[in-house]
Formats: sequence, C-alpha cells, structure tokens
Amino acid sequence: MLSVARIKQLKSLHKKKYRRQERQFLLEGNRLIDQALSADAQLLEVWMTKKNLNSIFGKNILKKFEKKNIPFSLAPEKIIRQISDSLNNQGIIALAPIPNYEKYNDPPKRAIYLDGISDPGNMGTILRTAAWFGIKSIFCSPECVDPFNSKVVRSAMGAHFYFSHFDAISEEKLLVDYSEARMEIFGSDMKGNPVQTLNVEAIKGWILILGNEAHGIGEPSKSFITSTISIPGIEGLESLNVSVAGGILLHELTSLKIVTN
Amino acid sequence: MLSVARIKQLKSLHKKKYRRQERQFLLEGNRLIDQALSADAQLLEVWMTKKNLNSIFGKNILKKFEKKNIPFSLAPEKIIRQISDSLNNQGIIALAPIPNYEKYNDPPKRAIYLDGISDPGNMGTILRTAAWFGIKSIFCSPECVDPFNSKVVRSAMGAHFYFSHFDAISEEKLLVDYSEARMEIFGSDMKGNPVQTLNVEAIKGWILILGNEAHGIGEPSKSFITSTISIPGIEGLESLNVSVAGGILLHELTSLKIVTN
Repeated sequence: MLSVARIKQLKSLHKKKYRRQERQFLLEGNRLIDQALSADAQLLEVWMTKKNLNSIFGKNILKKFEKKNIPFSLAPEKIIRQISDSLNNQGIIALAPIPNYEKYNDPPKRAIYLDGISDPGNMGTILRTAAWFGIKSIFCSPECVDPFNSKVVRSAMGAHFYFSHFDAISEEKLLVDYSEARMEIFGSDMKGNPVQTLNVEAIKGWILILGNEAHGIGEPSKSFITSTISIPGIEGLESLNVSVAGGILLHELTSLKIVTN
Repeated sequence: MLSVARIKQLKSLHKKKYRRQERQFLLEGNRLIDQALSADAQLLEVWMTKKNLNSIFGKNILKKFEKKNIPFSLAPEKIIRQISDSLNNQGIIALAPIPNYEKYNDPPKRAIYLDGISDPGNMGTILRTAAWFGIKSIFCSPECVDPFNSKVVRSAMGAHFYFSHFDAISEEKLLVDYSEARMEIFGSDMKGNPVQTLNVEAIKGWILILGNEAHGIGEPSKSFITSTISIPGIEGLESLNVSVAGGILLHELTSLKIVTN
C-alpha cells in the first residue's frame, strides 16, 4: 500500500527540480511502459489498477514484470489518478531512474541538436522519430523543455531508453567541435536547398539542428550551419510543424553515407 | 460589448453539435488568425485584448482587419478567457463560417483518407502538412475526431481554408471509386516496401490512407490498398507517430508524376 508520504514523493516528480534531485522519473500508460520494457529499461517499481491488470494487456505485462523481477503492486484507481499527470491515465504508472547516458567527449557521427524546442509533444515526437531512425545522440539547448517532463516521456514512447548521449549542452561547445571535426552542421530554412537534392560527398558525420517552434534556429547556432536545407512546399503557407519537418529531414539524412576514416 | 447570451453562444461552438448546427467555428491565437487571413479566410468577427492589440503583432493585424472590412472589437481578458478553449490563450479569438467545400464527385488525383485519427493534435498536424504539400482533398472516416474541434484548428494553422474537398465519408464509397478509376491506394505498414524505392509507372492518381494511432488502418480500408509502403526504421521499436509518418510519405508521394490522360 502506498503511504501518503510516498504518494507525495511520486507526485513531486512532475517537477523538474525533484526529478533532477532524485534522478528518477515517472512513466504512464500501457504502450509506453511496454515499450520501455522492450528497450530493457530499468523499472524500480510499477503500480497498476485491478481493472487494467485484469485486461489482456495486464495479464501479458505482468508476466514480463515477473520475468524481469520488477516490483509490482496493485493500487486503487483513486491513487493512480492522484499520482498521474494525465487526465486520461490508463491505470498504470512506473518509476524509473534517469538512465546513465555516456558523457559527451567527441562529436558523434549522427546527432540532433534541439535548439529551444518548447512544446513537450514536439520534443517527445522528435525523440521517438530519432530512435526510429537509429539516432543515438540527442543534445538539447538549456532553453528546451525538460526532456523528462511526463508529457515528453509519453510522446517519446520509450525513446529515452534507447539513446547513448542525451545531454543539455550549449551550442558553443557542441557546434565548435562539429565544425573543427569538419562534419556537416545541417539547419533547415525555407530558403535552403531542397533536402532531396542534397549532394554532399565524403561526409565524416553530421548533426541536424532543429529550432524553436515560433522563432526557428537561434542566431548563435545559425552561424555554425554548413548546409542550409529546406523541404519545398506551397509558398505563403505556414511552415511545417517542427516534429514533422524533423522526421522528413531524418528520413533523408539517414540515407547519407558516412566515410569511416 | 459581448452580451452574456453571445458569450454563451460562442462557447457552445466548442461542441461539435453546435458547430454543425451554426456552421461556424472559432479560431484562437495570433499565428493561426494571421495564417487564416493569408489564406483569405472569411472571418465574421474578431475579439482581442487591449494588451495584444498594443503589441507589434496587434498593430499589424489591425491593419489587415481594416483592409478586409472584418468587424473587430476589444474584449477584456476575462471574457476572452471565458470563451477560449486554451489555457494559454493569446488574447485573440475569431469567428469563422465553416467553408463551403466542393461536393465529392470523382476521385481527386491526390488525396488523403484519414481512417479513424483520434488525437486532435495529430489530425491538425496532418492537415497542416497536407496543405504544405499542396494536397487539396482530405476525406475523413466517421470515426475521426471532428476536424473543426478547436485543438485540431489550432494545430492545423489555417489549413482548413486551403482545401477544396474536406468531407466525412465512408471508405466504401470513396475507395471503390479509386479502385474503379485504377488509381493507387497507398497504405503504410511495417511490412510494406520502403517508400523511397517505390516504383509505380503511369500513375493516374493516388490516395494515401492514414490509420488510427493505436490500431492502424481498419480492415475494411485495408482490403482496398493497392500498394503497401513502409518507412524503414529500427526493428522492435514503437512505430512513428502518424503525423510524422504522414509527413514522410507525403514528401515522397508528392514527387510521383501523374499522367494526365
């Protein structure tokens, strides 16, 4: 049974300050927790309603918890609702440690720099897409929404457990390194070259910068861009949503061949 | 000054039933309303807070309202908050008639069929992306979230005013027509052919089916698919978000040449 103090402590994890202090975060929802298990996430504890446990999903996931020795308990719907951040919680919450990502040293060969992404849904969708395309290194500017925010975690569908690097870092440190290593620094802009006609040879590696929803890529990051690319569309219309644009660019960029020496 | 009855009537437009009855819907937010003006949307009336009006944005948009003879009035923040559906309203709301779209007769050469899209953010993002890629015909299955829901409208960024066809229709009527016209019916599935290797010749036209977030494309629609396409990614991971997948597929499909006879 969850004590009042324990419920309070779990709820505190909806705040960035306490997530950082405790180095823990919450996962909510059937698909997300199932995906986290597939990604071999370390789950410290799981709480589930009786109703959810008795569903087909519940019976299947319980076997996985048992196999992986994950502590599991039943909790009344009222308690799950209290801890949950979501109005439509599905009757399952898990507690996970923030993974120990590798420390950043050298620029990885394929990476994304999120420069001021502010919407949690966009951030989560970009992370999910990045994982899908096999990008293991994600860097965030300090202005980004916290990537362990529960809305980000929900939209990312387990991507958090897939990355090797997942750091908050200033563009100065990161992009200077890419520049010095003569790797490509891609940024998108309406006036850039259509991404499908991109012609870069003997590429040593790349980083894609995705900018803020309203203001785009910030001036400091912009100055480092080596290739400005665009996704052609109807002129005069509002540009694409950043997570859709990111998906299209990753679909194209991940087909670029990277030379190994 | 907005009367209590008028406020009540405007608020009722957050419900599908009243939107259909009055054939009107609400637009909220600076960028959305600016985009609607660029798309030559007919706005019946606009309300704005003093604070927003005194901003640079406010001064610019006021000129546009005057040029287009759009009735405009100041409203206290409290009233805008009452009418708004959004917690972070920006102090501007506009009332628009639901556009008169063309009646569906023959299958358009490029179209999208939304088969049970349930998340308003996904629906809106797909509409915004479709408009960007010049797709003017969108058909929705009856199970979809209402496309004039204010969250859909917010994410679509004015796309509603760009389409020629925008209808709720059953897959039976629509997909039989595409089938008989020997046009391509694309659906995506993990097991399909990678979209970038797609090789279709002398194509007369196409429709892309995008399925429900949790259950994918429904069985009735699936049976009509002529080409199953995929976006290759890391196996075992949760698939892409439907609006991102839709963006990547449209980016590829809109480059297909369509024969004119």
